[in-house]
Amino acid sequence: MSEENSIRRITLTHGAGGALTSNLIKSIFLKGFSIRRALDGVSLDDLDDSGSIKLMDREVVVSIDSHTVDPIFFPGGDIGSLSIAGTVNDVAMLGAKPIAIVDAIVVEEGFPIETLERIVDSMNKVAKEVPIAIISGDFKVMPKGKVDKVIITTAGIGIVDENKVVLDKGAKKGDKIIVTNNIGEHGIAILSAREGLKFEGDISSDVAPIWDVVESAMNVGGVHAMKDPTRGGLIGALGEIAEKSKVSIWIDEEEIPIRDTVINACEMLGIDPLELICEGCAVIVVESEKAEDILKSIKKTKHGKNARIVGEVKDRDRGKVFLRTSIGSVRPLEIPIGEPLPRIC
Amino acid sequence: MSEENSIRRITLTHGAGGALTSNLIKSIFLKGFSIRRALDGVSLDDLDDSGSIKLMDREVVVSIDSHTVDPIFFPGGDIGSLSIAGTVNDVAMLGAKPIAIVDAIVVEEGFPIETLERIVDSMNKVAKEVPIAIISGDFKVMPKGKVDKVIITTAGIGIVDENKVVLDKGAKKGDKIIVTNNIGEHGIAILSAREGLKFEGDISSDVAPIWDVVESAMNVGGVHAMKDPTRGGLIGALGEIAEKSKVSIWIDEEEIPIRDTVINACEMLGIDPLELICEGCAVIVVESEKAEDILKSIKKTKHGKNARIVGEVKDRDRGKVFLRTSIGSVRPLEIPIGEPLPRIC
Repeated sequence: MSEENSIRRITLTHGAGGALTSNLIKSIFLKGFSIRRALDGVSLDDLDDSGSIKLMDREVVVSIDSHTVDPIFFPGGDIGSLSIAGTVNDVAMLGAKPIAIVDAIVVEEGFPIETLERIVDSMNKVAKEVPIAIISGDFKVMPKGKVDKVIITTAGIGIVDENKVVLDKGAKKGDKIIVTNNIGEHGIAILSAREGLKFEGDISSDVAPIWDVVESAMNVGGVHAMKDPTRGGLIGALGEIAEKSKVSIWIDEEEIPIRDTVINACEMLGIDPLELICEGCAVIVVESEKAEDILKSIKKTKHGKNARIVGEVKDRDRGKVFLRTSIGSVRPLEIPIGEPLPRIC
Repeated sequence: MSEENSIRRITLTHGAGGALTSNLIKSIFLKGFSIRRALDGVSLDDLDDSGSIKLMDREVVVSIDSHTVDPIFFPGGDIGSLSIAGTVNDVAMLGAKPIAIVDAIVVEEGFPIETLERIVDSMNKVAKEVPIAIISGDFKVMPKGKVDKVIITTAGIGIVDENKVVLDKGAKKGDKIIVTNNIGEHGIAILSAREGLKFEGDISSDVAPIWDVVESAMNVGGVHAMKDPTRGGLIGALGEIAEKSKVSIWIDEEEIPIRDTVINACEMLGIDPLELICEGCAVIVVESEKAEDILKSIKKTKHGKNARIVGEVKDRDRGKVFLRTSIGSVRPLEIPIGEPLPRIC
């Protein structure tokens, strides 16, 4: 074996947010690291959407994401709106009220200032909608050709009462599964913008800050676990909850909120819509008796109108996700190894 | 004028951390933005090293920085140690005890996994030294050629008692200026590694987390302003403090801690050492009567052994910085428009 061949290299799949990313995190980022928790909060070990710090009777939730989406403008949004909504949603998935954002922007030399202005304008609009304050930032320029256009990293800070943090591992037998928006819209929107594809009917990204949806559910009570189906899509999110909660999740194909336009586009492209990334949607696992009330509450919010109860939690076949199809059969869903498309978010 | 010429474009100087960066932030990032403060804390408007959130009787300080240093390994450190130390220091500059870090790593497809392991190892080592916990993270891969090797963005969280936050605007007439370490080492180390230059004597980056230095000063009391002389170097940091505090700062050339090796390298390269970036140094502005005690306290710390009192604050010629040279003349220092070298941090 030549020396070159013996070098293990990062592949696109390592960054796809699935099993390979998770393995890389476990084998590199968690290896030999001794300080794991800050003031007894949520840690990297938990592999959840955010970490946290306990502070008196509150918990400060912190999340970070780099956004590398290509193209930077797409139907329904741009890298600016994505960078705020994505991080707000990660904070919200722990049940924390988003309070503040800090952002670090790296642009390529020669990037048009007017384009930067449009992007910052999008960031501000989404921040205003939440509402969340952008309290600090960093701006760097890399020489031409050293980075493709722009990367925006945002870290979000949220607050939740101590020990009220909602983790992926909280799903319990008998719980109901709510999906809060039509799935797959962001994935198809990016793909169509990138490849210049046209589909019947309009498709635009669902990118949106969904703290309103989460808050409406939390106000009813009985929320046990939450995850936004980003890289890896609905199956990825359900699979992670099933694995961490040591339960199985059963969903009904007919109940999944999805538009025909997206189904048709997926058929044309040979893509499973259940694996498609969403950016304005959450999977919320709730106590059975509260499910209908929570659904009603969510449906009143701006970003929760398409919410549906799609299935429930069982305690056998732990770690697995099953789909009950429209013709009545049951098939186990294979957890994707990650998002097949690079730079989708 | 052709259409192409009419497009305003980002230049490397826009990302150099000086006046042009500051103008860009004011004209783009602060324009039309309505939510400026989170829970009455420090905001983007303050253009300080970090933002903050007030929470009961504490203030949560938050800072973010993208690290794009080239080369990624250099004498004295690497992009991993820089990414932790840089953000820890930004949090510390507000007087807050660093508590937690979140990191977002973007790597180029094909990046060697062993190299990533070395970098993460550096991050962990510095985090352990502080000590600070890495509580959450993000990992993304960009296709080959779309980003040069690796970018690491870190956000840091620190805690300080309410209203004890130390801002750049706090310097007062009569205050003394302490520089806590030899200056210019990081800048020369990067330059020598990048260009393959050899200088007489060893030069390696001073990159280090300096919360120990800050804490030792804060424990004495009387700290009015702090800034780490990163992009723009010592003059840049002093200039910002002078401007925001509406004072002038007078420093004695002979008192500035700097090694002959660095002075010689700067002479060879035609660079002003006062503009060179440091990554393990702080400018601390302190109450005159406490200055000697603070200096003594700082000199006992691991990263403060080279600390010196270099000058003082006056209330005339506001916003300006003056150098008293070794031959007794006084010259005003021109605030640099930013760091002349791209990808220095």
